[in-house]
Amino acid sequence: MTEPAAEPTTAAATALAPAPAPAPAPAARRAPGPALRLTGLAESLPSSVPFVGPEAHERARARPFAARIGANESVFGPSPAARAAMAAETADGIWRYADPESHDLRVALAAHHGVGMENVVIGEGIDGLLGLLVRLVTEAGTPIVTSDGAYPTFNYHVAGFGGRLIKVPYAGDHEDPDALIAAARDSGAPLIYFANPDNPMGSWHDAATVQRMIEAVPPGAILCLDEAYAESAPLGTMPPIDPQDARVIRMRTFSKVHGMAGARIGYAIGAAPVIKAFDKVRNHFGINRAGQVGALAALSDPDHVAATVARIIAARTRIAEIAAANGLVALPSAANFVAIDCRADGAFARAVLAGLIARDIFVRMPFVAPQDRCIRVSAGTPADLDAFAAALPGALADARAAC
Amino acid sequence: MTEPAAEPTTAAATALAPAPAPAPAPAARRAPGPALRLTGLAESLPSSVPFVGPEAHERARARPFAARIGANESVFGPSPAARAAMAAETADGIWRYADPESHDLRVALAAHHGVGMENVVIGEGIDGLLGLLVRLVTEAGTPIVTSDGAYPTFNYHVAGFGGRLIKVPYAGDHEDPDALIAAARDSGAPLIYFANPDNPMGSWHDAATVQRMIEAVPPGAILCLDEAYAESAPLGTMPPIDPQDARVIRMRTFSKVHGMAGARIGYAIGAAPVIKAFDKVRNHFGINRAGQVGALAALSDPDHVAATVARIIAARTRIAEIAAANGLVALPSAANFVAIDCRADGAFARAVLAGLIARDIFVRMPFVAPQDRCIRVSAGTPADLDAFAAALPGALADARAAC
Repeated sequence: MTEPAAEPTTAAATALAPAPAPAPAPAARRAPGPALRLTGLAESLPSSVPFVGPEAHERARARPFAARIGANESVFGPSPAARAAMAAETADGIWRYADPESHDLRVALAAHHGVGMENVVIGEGIDGLLGLLVRLVTEAGTPIVTSDGAYPTFNYHVAGFGGRLIKVPYAGDHEDPDALIAAARDSGAPLIYFANPDNPMGSWHDAATVQRMIEAVPPGAILCLDEAYAESAPLGTMPPIDPQDARVIRMRTFSKVHGMAGARIGYAIGAAPVIKAFDKVRNHFGINRAGQVGALAALSDPDHVAATVARIIAARTRIAEIAAANGLVALPSAANFVAIDCRADGAFARAVLAGLIARDIFVRMPFVAPQDRCIRVSAGTPADLDAFAAALPGALADARAAC
Repeated sequence: MTEPAAEPTTAAATALAPAPAPAPAPAARRAPGPALRLTGLAESLPSSVPFVGPEAHERARARPFAARIGANESVFGPSPAARAAMAAETADGIWRYADPESHDLRVALAAHHGVGMENVVIGEGIDGLLGLLVRLVTEAGTPIVTSDGAYPTFNYHVAGFGGRLIKVPYAGDHEDPDALIAAARDSGAPLIYFANPDNPMGSWHDAATVQRMIEAVPPGAILCLDEAYAESAPLGTMPPIDPQDARVIRMRTFSKVHGMAGARIGYAIGAAPVIKAFDKVRNHFGINRAGQVGALAALSDPDHVAATVARIIAARTRIAEIAAANGLVALPSAANFVAIDCRADGAFARAVLAGLIARDIFVRMPFVAPQDRCIRVSAGTPADLDAFAAALPGALADARAAC
């Protein structure tokens, strides 16, 4: 490596006492073995990536994807206002650390949602905020409730802090509010994870059901209501936000309809004491400055959000048509993706998925039966979906031949 | 709040059994009290920001700073290549999540440092990586060694995971390698934090001393060698990197001479098993995409680094001249800042600091005696340092009148 030279002034006279041994002595080097004296918990965790990125596939295949419609990103991109704000910030202000309080963005989000800035915390995507929330309430053996087959990154965080996952089955491809609440009551869990709309199925519950769920949260527990896909859901899906209600914390993001997944800005809305607790553990200087100003600008462009939602709805319709044309069934979706029931088992859907990836179409699928009979296709551009439509028959034929 | 409407299709029929109560009933709302059922550890932690950002000062004063020379950012900004890469990425690719493996950036960093990509992990600044490293080795009561008055964010992470900080005094404004190693040996600590060059004093040890320190790391411990200020240090400050040596992990960043603090890209270099352990706990999708490509571009522009280092050296000289002209003593510095000995106690230096802030000059200072007799001034532009030179006499006069 090359280190630029600075002026040659004197270093400290301090020296470690006995033998001067400037070059490492291989014989004396510690033998291979535990590289870090890990905690018992850390020792027990696998070194794994919860999701393999499309770039890893592309490197393995040595070929780019023709359509990137697997990670529920928004192919429709960010608002021009957000693009301009981010470009200006990277050209000029990026030498500065971001404001660790994210003051301006929190004020704008508070106004947008009709809450106070003390009700909003910014994180490196919802993923980062989920990790902090889990950390605040989880120690060895703490029961934490989620749905079997829901967001794997939440489970990753629970395992990472030594919690004990209590998984409730889906009911008819929907998360099951009654069962989630019952599991929290029975186990005494301090935290329940519930996504509405749901990922990976795209299903949703109406606001009244969700509000009744909030009302039913057992004392001592909090509902983590992941609303990453809020903007593409029908009106009447999200209950009103009550900033006084400490029974629920809501997660939102700029990664979906705002088209800024790469900018890593998520946020949580909750009662002030809940939000304040994040200051105990968060990486205060972890938010990037271009993302902060991009999110602020995105919030000022509701027309872009509306236009993106219209494109998502058109894409959902098109995906359903493609599915039907191939004898498959698209599930209703309130999100920016559609789960397609391949009408067989998980092995079959995995074969379809492999066939699509081999044909340069990046898609993903649910991990857990019986949801794993589906593949999950993100809302793409017309060209993305043309490519998907062209590839699907061959992928299905291969899967039928193999299974 | 406004939620865009999507098409009105049916939500799930699932409903929580008994009473339909769509509006929250204030009487039934949980009484104020613990908002989250925090772990005992989380309960014990304060909700505080380790550093107050300059933006918070500006909001409190309702006036911007004339010179932002307190956070050891690089006022000289990023390479034009990095600016261009980031601007292009925010315009085009930012809708995509970043590659969770940061493959391209790690390959480039590995080549730059003469190691393998398995020896490099990327994080949201060194702050984020320090948190992960502490987490991997710390449980309740784990002793962790650092210097008294060294980087507060490291201490924040140790407290946040329940560790027990063992603080070793500075020796003559330098961190004390012998004492740090002895403290690790005596306490059985799994982790020793040591910054070279040091922040907040700007002092440094030569490579031979640091290498002897690495050789002396007790079995079962690892040295976290924070080299955030490596590039502005004299040749011969950093020992060669040995990617086989599991006794040391080295932290580097794009936040200092690369001028990209707001882009939040730090990295660690270490033995492959040490680096792999980060995959157990990191936020895999936490890195922003503009920062990734910006860092990659910055690495390809060593001329910008060299030019920035030249400007830093000129600024260090100028800061020393300003100090001397005011009867103060600038300490030798290998970093992009200079500690100025105000030649009195902490109360006096704090008064000088307050006087500078009141005069629109953002600077910071060490927290712990006797280092807190100093203020710490980052390498600024000539205009920044003109403003500092103009403000200092008044700040000193006020402090002398008050103390």
